[in-house]
Amino acid sequence: MHKHGGEIYARHYRLDYSVNVNLLGCPPAVIEAAKKGAELADRYPDVECRALRGPLAGKLGVREDQIVFGNGAADVIITTVLARRPRKVLLPAPTFAEYEQAARMVSAEPVYYYLKEDNNFDLTEDILDLLTPDIDMLFICNPNNPTGRVVSRDLLEKILDCCLEADILVVVDECFNEFLDQPESVTLVPRLDRWPNLLILKAFTKVYAMPGLRLGYGLCSNRDFLDRMAECNQPWAVSIPAQYAGAAALSQQEFVDRSMAILRKERAYLQKELRRMGFKLYDSRANYIFLKTDLLLKEACGEKGILIRDCSNYVGLGTGYYRIAVRQHEDNVVLIQALEEIIHG
Amino acid sequence: MHKHGGEIYARHYRLDYSVNVNLLGCPPAVIEAAKKGAELADRYPDVECRALRGPLAGKLGVREDQIVFGNGAADVIITTVLARRPRKVLLPAPTFAEYEQAARMVSAEPVYYYLKEDNNFDLTEDILDLLTPDIDMLFICNPNNPTGRVVSRDLLEKILDCCLEADILVVVDECFNEFLDQPESVTLVPRLDRWPNLLILKAFTKVYAMPGLRLGYGLCSNRDFLDRMAECNQPWAVSIPAQYAGAAALSQQEFVDRSMAILRKERAYLQKELRRMGFKLYDSRANYIFLKTDLLLKEACGEKGILIRDCSNYVGLGTGYYRIAVRQHEDNVVLIQALEEIIHG
Repeated sequence: MHKHGGEIYARHYRLDYSVNVNLLGCPPAVIEAAKKGAELADRYPDVECRALRGPLAGKLGVREDQIVFGNGAADVIITTVLARRPRKVLLPAPTFAEYEQAARMVSAEPVYYYLKEDNNFDLTEDILDLLTPDIDMLFICNPNNPTGRVVSRDLLEKILDCCLEADILVVVDECFNEFLDQPESVTLVPRLDRWPNLLILKAFTKVYAMPGLRLGYGLCSNRDFLDRMAECNQPWAVSIPAQYAGAAALSQQEFVDRSMAILRKERAYLQKELRRMGFKLYDSRANYIFLKTDLLLKEACGEKGILIRDCSNYVGLGTGYYRIAVRQHEDNVVLIQALEEIIHG
Repeated sequence: MHKHGGEIYARHYRLDYSVNVNLLGCPPAVIEAAKKGAELADRYPDVECRALRGPLAGKLGVREDQIVFGNGAADVIITTVLARRPRKVLLPAPTFAEYEQAARMVSAEPVYYYLKEDNNFDLTEDILDLLTPDIDMLFICNPNNPTGRVVSRDLLEKILDCCLEADILVVVDECFNEFLDQPESVTLVPRLDRWPNLLILKAFTKVYAMPGLRLGYGLCSNRDFLDRMAECNQPWAVSIPAQYAGAAALSQQEFVDRSMAILRKERAYLQKELRRMGFKLYDSRANYIFLKTDLLLKEACGEKGILIRDCSNYVGLGTGYYRIAVRQHEDNVVLIQALEEIIHG
């Protein structure tokens, strides 16, 4: 199992490049709201998430009843799988490991669509041949974790049309969408109503750097499926601190814009430096960089107090693949310096 | 679905007698700890819950690896059902509705053992006849919700022996155990190692009045089953505020003792007054009172700004059954006064 984020509790690291959340951290107003929520610990959470649902629906331009909240996106993934109960699930490889783990909870058989390294790990039209009626569910992480590669909206729409024909539920995970240069050209949220077989997965975790609070959600236009999802989770899945934090996060657009401007600059800086040092990069569009090297990079960085993500345990990857978050410049200079020492030392 | 705790968000009530948590509320030190946890929002939660696991194991006298944490007890119920994947589940009726809801998530068939009103809704030895090999799982809430009635340890042990024979997993829900006059004479925790088919369900929710933070756990001595449970939930199910709050709660024994002393007095007061007014009581041993009346009590109390739990939607109960929490004396006087007015007005 991939239990990312946990290694910092077993050992101290000077810098954590393994976690790919907003490089500015969690907005102070969001933390304050979570603390206010904690003061209401002796109440049950609002099962309807009223304080959060309305403002979020307004911001996204969806109907309030098209949102299903969960205890982080991982919870929404499990609920979706329980509601659909697939026998066969099509999964790109490599991709986020929780899709397959959830599929195994209901004994579904994973079928892999292997992304090709010599194609930059891009998902391409040949996936359409695999969208046969024996498949019940397809996951697409867009941009993909850990590669940072994007599926175009044109191809997604073709996939969704094919899947509608074949009765395949498509989960499009847009948890990293906001980190793209042009998120609005990729997201399917404005077209939610077009496909009853589409569930868009989103989280507050990454954009607002609040993985410790657990708040994710799904968007779907299919009323029957949403009702079934409600039957497949507890009503109190979202804590009061998470509900309060989420509501506060929605007014943090200036914070998000500022962090994205820094991200663009720092991603370019890291890519340039890493390429200069001879690492093989795959041109990630997200807030992390995916690379290949013959060096034992995780161990070497660990010795310097820097934690990075070894991706060798992803299905579809061998040894030598790593994911490195994009952090603020001061940290990135330390990382590059450490890598220089590893290469030349 | 039973979505208790949520009604206060739809409408304001002066007093909430529908929620049965500690009458002193959440200890201030627990809220402070949750707020400290909220400040660490930008980290992933510790997947091992290290800060909480060791102290809790020490307090309970179990091994650290015998505890499985979840996003409230409801989350642990779902994980247990996913791990066992039952076809038939035996359920006392009436009891906590989440057991059946979880069973339905995996399409298990519920089989009811109807508790008899003329027997004070007590679970008795005749349940042993139903423990046949076609049953995969049995839930026992002890003390039971909503009746507050207790199954003796002697009978529980007979049930567990029979279930071991028939390969039935027994979930004993002890979430209300601490509210009993002699909790230690009822709990199965000291005998955890004796039955590999036993999962004891516990929560911080009730004793420490922290339903808004979501923290529950299961205890089991069966390593294989615990491994299977770990595969049936996300690794980050417990938020950082919940982990911090739980760790702080463990040193609140004085608070708990004080609340239990008040509870004993106030439960006796309410029982005496309610009996005097002619309500039919079933001698609950927990921190709530279960009663029957021909009055439309929920509506009548609601008009006076008091929320109580109408139990008519529990399987095994008809109209006329209500659950009322035991609160502090000042509140209870208001409740009794309101009931007097309802009866005589």
